[in-house]
Amino acid sequence: MRELDLIGAIQAALTDRGDRTVRWSGDDAAVVRARPLAVTSIDTVVDGVHFRLDTHDAADVGWKALATALSDLAAMGAAAGEAYVALVLPEGFEGALELVGGMEELAAATGVTIAGGDVVRGPALTVAVTVVGWADSEDELVGRDGAAPGDVVGVTGDLGGSEAGRLALERGERGPLVERHLRPAPRLEEARALAAAGTSAMIDVSDGLATDARHLADASGVQLRLSLDAVPCAPGVSPEQAAVGGDDYELLFAIAPDRRADAEAAAPVSWLGEVRAGGGLVLLDAGGRAVEGLAGFEH
Amino acid sequence: MRELDLIGAIQAALTDRGDRTVRWSGDDAAVVRARPLAVTSIDTVVDGVHFRLDTHDAADVGWKALATALSDLAAMGAAAGEAYVALVLPEGFEGALELVGGMEELAAATGVTIAGGDVVRGPALTVAVTVVGWADSEDELVGRDGAAPGDVVGVTGDLGGSEAGRLALERGERGPLVERHLRPAPRLEEARALAAAGTSAMIDVSDGLATDARHLADASGVQLRLSLDAVPCAPGVSPEQAAVGGDDYELLFAIAPDRRADAEAAAPVSWLGEVRAGGGLVLLDAGGRAVEGLAGFEH
Repeated sequence: MRELDLIGAIQAALTDRGDRTVRWSGDDAAVVRARPLAVTSIDTVVDGVHFRLDTHDAADVGWKALATALSDLAAMGAAAGEAYVALVLPEGFEGALELVGGMEELAAATGVTIAGGDVVRGPALTVAVTVVGWADSEDELVGRDGAAPGDVVGVTGDLGGSEAGRLALERGERGPLVERHLRPAPRLEEARALAAAGTSAMIDVSDGLATDARHLADASGVQLRLSLDAVPCAPGVSPEQAAVGGDDYELLFAIAPDRRADAEAAAPVSWLGEVRAGGGLVLLDAGGRAVEGLAGFEH
Repeated sequence: MRELDLIGAIQAALTDRGDRTVRWSGDDAAVVRARPLAVTSIDTVVDGVHFRLDTHDAADVGWKALATALSDLAAMGAAAGEAYVALVLPEGFEGALELVGGMEELAAATGVTIAGGDVVRGPALTVAVTVVGWADSEDELVGRDGAAPGDVVGVTGDLGGSEAGRLALERGERGPLVERHLRPAPRLEEARALAAAGTSAMIDVSDGLATDARHLADASGVQLRLSLDAVPCAPGVSPEQAAVGGDDYELLFAIAPDRRADAEAAAPVSWLGEVRAGGGLVLLDAGGRAVEGLAGFEH
């Protein structure tokens, strides 16, 4: 398909589901009616690095590229708005429309409009997605930096499923964990509900609980003390594995202890531990001893 | 340099020059105080396709990647605000900080804040830049689609210089045209002044005048009749070459004839012809005959 034909076919595959879009596709830039605060993040996935076209359908790649970007908006408690997509397509790659179709499926599920894009040639399939979310005031948003000593620490859903799914996929298996790896769900609604419940800090678990808990602790200038036994595990996954597996896109958050019930009403939450003065992450075993070095998944 | 160190070094090389930035780097997403209309575009350049690292310094690549994206905001008449940058870095590439430095030079010159980014590994240096501009009302903005029969058609600056510079660069030469190819200037101020002067349609000349004039004609549903002899030429470039050379990032626009003087006061403008009912682009020679097939640059 010629490039201009491809761009036309892509545009035809998209739906403008925003009531805020003034100029959509076909001009030099999109124009969108803003709300007071714009929340913006860019995320990139590359064939052979973040996914493998020999195990991922193009539609899965499109879904996942948008999902990882939207997860950053979720982590802020923002309402998802628009996505802007750059596609680098290798010679002979025929899956561009399928890729955009997978992305559009998630866009439809989350109320996002894919409002602009760019299609170029290059050596490896690469998808860069910029997502823009909106909020009316700073109170609606949550950073990584507000956790305070005395807060309790929770996480949504369960962990380790995506990495277990990735390994299953490598072995040629299918199933619910593989599906979770291929089509992760950004926790946009849960995040806004948690933010409204008063979370003091929040981050999406993209690099694994152990790593992202450290990011939150560092940004807030506090110590997180979490019990390994309390980590919610995906089926067949050990707590150690659940603590290091990435790409789950659940939400890790801190909140004042008297708001615990509000958080539980907002989303399915497991309580992992507490925030103290100090720095870094301390993972505790069942006996209350600090765990040094996590074993995790066999690679 | 390890990835986290590199990201830290990149953040340290950037300046927040917005008075609108609520959350800058270091969180899941940037937060910016919006104006009523957000104008957004994404643009991607890939080594070996849009530039060649054997002739382009990394700093030039960074400059150019931001310049091409900002040029789309200029074409809309928007005020440039923030940029979000995804870098795909090949193994062994050491120029990431230099690249960001070149981008930051242009950001400083245009008042733009590089407010977020993503750094990943991949097979070829790729830079995807999303730029966000702002406007207070739709009246401030100009699309491609407003040209009307009776309008006159103008262009800023001169054309063909970037392509001539690219060919000189291939021959190992340097000079002002090479500089123009390496570090194009997005016409942000000229564009806003032209929009304020009442342009009915505008586009940036990125693919060459002949191609972009057709885009404008198609979007507006009109015919553009332009005189080849009137095309402003970069030094040493013929009118045919100037009409097909890309990457100049000058502005092509239509405006009502009684606003001609306002346009001339807004920017250095050459008048190329007029808008008629009909479709497509007609290029006329000195005798008023339609030119069929442009010779252009020798490749």
